[in-house]
Amino acid sequence: MDFSELVQKRQSDRKYERRPVDRDLVVRCLEAARLAPSACNSQPWKFVVVDDPDLVKQIGEAAASLGMNGFAREVPVIVAVVLEKMNLTARIGSVIKDKEYSLLDVGIAVEHFCLQAAELGLGTCIMGWFDEKKVKKLLGIGSKRVPLLVSLGYPAGETRRKARKALDEMSCWNKY
Amino acid sequence: MDFSELVQKRQSDRKYERRPVDRDLVVRCLEAARLAPSACNSQPWKFVVVDDPDLVKQIGEAAASLGMNGFAREVPVIVAVVLEKMNLTARIGSVIKDKEYSLLDVGIAVEHFCLQAAELGLGTCIMGWFDEKKVKKLLGIGSKRVPLLVSLGYPAGETRRKARKALDEMSCWNKY
Repeated sequence: MDFSELVQKRQSDRKYERRPVDRDLVVRCLEAARLAPSACNSQPWKFVVVDDPDLVKQIGEAAASLGMNGFAREVPVIVAVVLEKMNLTARIGSVIKDKEYSLLDVGIAVEHFCLQAAELGLGTCIMGWFDEKKVKKLLGIGSKRVPLLVSLGYPAGETRRKARKALDEMSCWNKY
Repeated sequence: MDFSELVQKRQSDRKYERRPVDRDLVVRCLEAARLAPSACNSQPWKFVVVDDPDLVKQIGEAAASLGMNGFAREVPVIVAVVLEKMNLTARIGSVIKDKEYSLLDVGIAVEHFCLQAAELGLGTCIMGWFDEKKVKKLLGIGSKRVPLLVSLGYPAGETRRKARKALDEMSCWNKY
């Protein structure tokens, strides 16, 4: 599968088979995330993989509210991505240039995880909407932020057509 | 090339051959970025591809300062990524959950671009350090933010070994 096929295949999966995911496969996804680039090679992330059946149910419950992410109650694995402190160089750059590099970095690393999962026949869904306080308490995270959760499992739905802006809406040449 | 090989191959390239990059290849990278996921499918990005030789030199100049990004003066293509307004759902979510989803989204889309480039034998370097005001003026961007520039060209350096945190430093199971 070449990269353009992989990009087509990766989608937000909200329906999963009940079977668990072998930890060896999760490790392959983590490995792809581990090698992601980041500002000043800061790697400001920690991936907390939740595959304990009771705990994953509680985390899923914390993700499901106001009609959002109801599927999260029934997934075999959820990964909580913790925003770690950047190194000094990246922190100084972030302040001088008024840009939160670490969020850009976390987006990149999480997508490495999801693309690797898609290649392995696994499905993912990145969730930004969840009860962060509850998730942090359940996992013992303390005061750090958890920008994203990612569900992981064998997808049970079909592959959808992607709805996206046209190329000339999302890009241009030599002038904005 | 499978995804784990692609992830190994992608690196921050800071030395390029002088030859230009065919626009067809740039379009393939844009296409990968176009299909990236985003919060509420908001797609809050616009990729301004600069391949006009005079203009790319001026943008490169705006990226090079304080000993950073000197290589940007000699690259065939630079892409400026503009942060566009999220859709209403994503904006409301961002406010309620106190998270800048659009930065996470831009990180994801930019990395799709870079991974596709790597597969095509092209090199990239994501730059967060540059004179944003100058770049915006040169490209007519107005008041919107430009979180990142990406250089693109045929790499002239060798592939380096990646220095990263160990797997058990960047991940854990069921407890932070």
